[in-house]
Amino acid sequence: MKFLTFDANGQTSFGAVANGGVVDLGRRHEDLPDLRQAIREDRLGTLATEAKAADADYTLDDIIFLPPVPNPEKIMCVGVNYANRNAEYKDGSDLPKYPSLFMRSRESLTGHLQPILDPPESDQLDYEGEIVMIIGKECRRVSQADAHTVVAGLTIMNEGSLRDYIRHGKFNVTPGKNFESSGSVGPWMVTAEELDPMGEHQVTTHVNGEKRQNDTTESLMFPFRRIIEYLTSFCRLKPGDVIATGTPNGAGARFDPPKYLTNGDIVEVTVSGIGTLKNTVQPETS
Amino acid sequence: MKFLTFDANGQTSFGAVANGGVVDLGRRHEDLPDLRQAIREDRLGTLATEAKAADADYTLDDIIFLPPVPNPEKIMCVGVNYANRNAEYKDGSDLPKYPSLFMRSRESLTGHLQPILDPPESDQLDYEGEIVMIIGKECRRVSQADAHTVVAGLTIMNEGSLRDYIRHGKFNVTPGKNFESSGSVGPWMVTAEELDPMGEHQVTTHVNGEKRQNDTTESLMFPFRRIIEYLTSFCRLKPGDVIATGTPNGAGARFDPPKYLTNGDIVEVTVSGIGTLKNTVQPETS
Repeated sequence: MKFLTFDANGQTSFGAVANGGVVDLGRRHEDLPDLRQAIREDRLGTLATEAKAADADYTLDDIIFLPPVPNPEKIMCVGVNYANRNAEYKDGSDLPKYPSLFMRSRESLTGHLQPILDPPESDQLDYEGEIVMIIGKECRRVSQADAHTVVAGLTIMNEGSLRDYIRHGKFNVTPGKNFESSGSVGPWMVTAEELDPMGEHQVTTHVNGEKRQNDTTESLMFPFRRIIEYLTSFCRLKPGDVIATGTPNGAGARFDPPKYLTNGDIVEVTVSGIGTLKNTVQPETS
Repeated sequence: MKFLTFDANGQTSFGAVANGGVVDLGRRHEDLPDLRQAIREDRLGTLATEAKAADADYTLDDIIFLPPVPNPEKIMCVGVNYANRNAEYKDGSDLPKYPSLFMRSRESLTGHLQPILDPPESDQLDYEGEIVMIIGKECRRVSQADAHTVVAGLTIMNEGSLRDYIRHGKFNVTPGKNFESSGSVGPWMVTAEELDPMGEHQVTTHVNGEKRQNDTTESLMFPFRRIIEYLTSFCRLKPGDVIATGTPNGAGARFDPPKYLTNGDIVEVTVSGIGTLKNTVQPETS
């Protein structure tokens, strides 16, 4: 089942994609404030059954897409994670022993079909297509063997970055990864019951129809199970937490000259079994 | 006025330190779920007046201290920020042009007088005494001249770190800064009306009574006004957001041999005009 969060008729709600449209589950369950709470209460199974039996309330054109979980406590992102991308850095370094991790704020990510904002402070806005795990239960110190039990489902991220701001800090990429609405997530979360999170997945990024990134999870230096194991070695994951798993090679910064995003560019990130996350770049008026 | 969040009689609430104890404001305002919402609704002024006129409900010994804002959307931390600490790194680097920033999760910070957990994964738990700004209003692109208008008040952080995990990542310190309950924040937020956030403040850290860190905000490479200006150049700050402003030299890792924390160690971080944040180190049983 595909779960999503959206605005319709001026109200924020969550629901499921079923029967040719969107079934509004938030309206049917006033005790459930949001999708995060539905995950926390382990109600996705019964909600999916209910959605399948219901008539759609909206078409997909009627709604404004928000991030599937708009209020995660944490958004953890893995840096360089595809083996051929590590080679792209050409710094002669060996394969890393541990994932490189950073965090994003909620405001840095907008929804499917919403504008990605190109801020006046930088002219180095770049795309990064990624597969995202959404956490299904509170957990700590999870083994690789058990990792699949804590994932509610998968979604897609354009982990948009401002390349010059990434290099501002001595040890950290935080500023370049946290410009408001510089990235996006969605359109929906596909549950683990519909798509095995630990299976092989393909991620492809197109800019204005030109293929820029294309790889599969077979190339990951740190597979999803290892990411879960490593993250939970130090932190407690919570229902709705968002884990972006890294981007393949082919981001704009890697071209010579670089191909940064500009006004009107259309970025589409497609992941097998999930769908396509599409956004248009728009200059931010400060 | 000093505002805080606490557990008492098995209930979480927020209140103010007044009249020899704690006035429970959460109980008196069922429409206010937490201190973050009180900040968001700009009600600290009227709540302070109310607290001054009320009898204390608890003594400070009756309550369990939680972080003053236990549910911030963002916890942003500035790395190396005291000029003499940059020199400590002895890497010959010039003074940085921009603050180095990273983020912490809520779960990485416990409250005043709660145990700081020394995890089995590392034997390099370290302290970092810091002054913390708590944001008072939603804002973006704030000038240095206006920076004081967006700060609700100040508190204290022991920005506890696992030194080996800090160096795991290629570009980021995230894992070593996010072990569960590896740091602390509190005991309370002192409002800007009582203590000028932009004034000069002294921060001192003692371990088992031995002075390890002692410096003032005069030594900051990036003063509080510049931190606000820089942060809001890329991200939207929200009421209750927590900004840790960096630690002076004298963390345990800088001694030869290093003085890491161990079972039973008592860490006290004192900031002029705020008070003392005290925690005892306890081994974590995984």
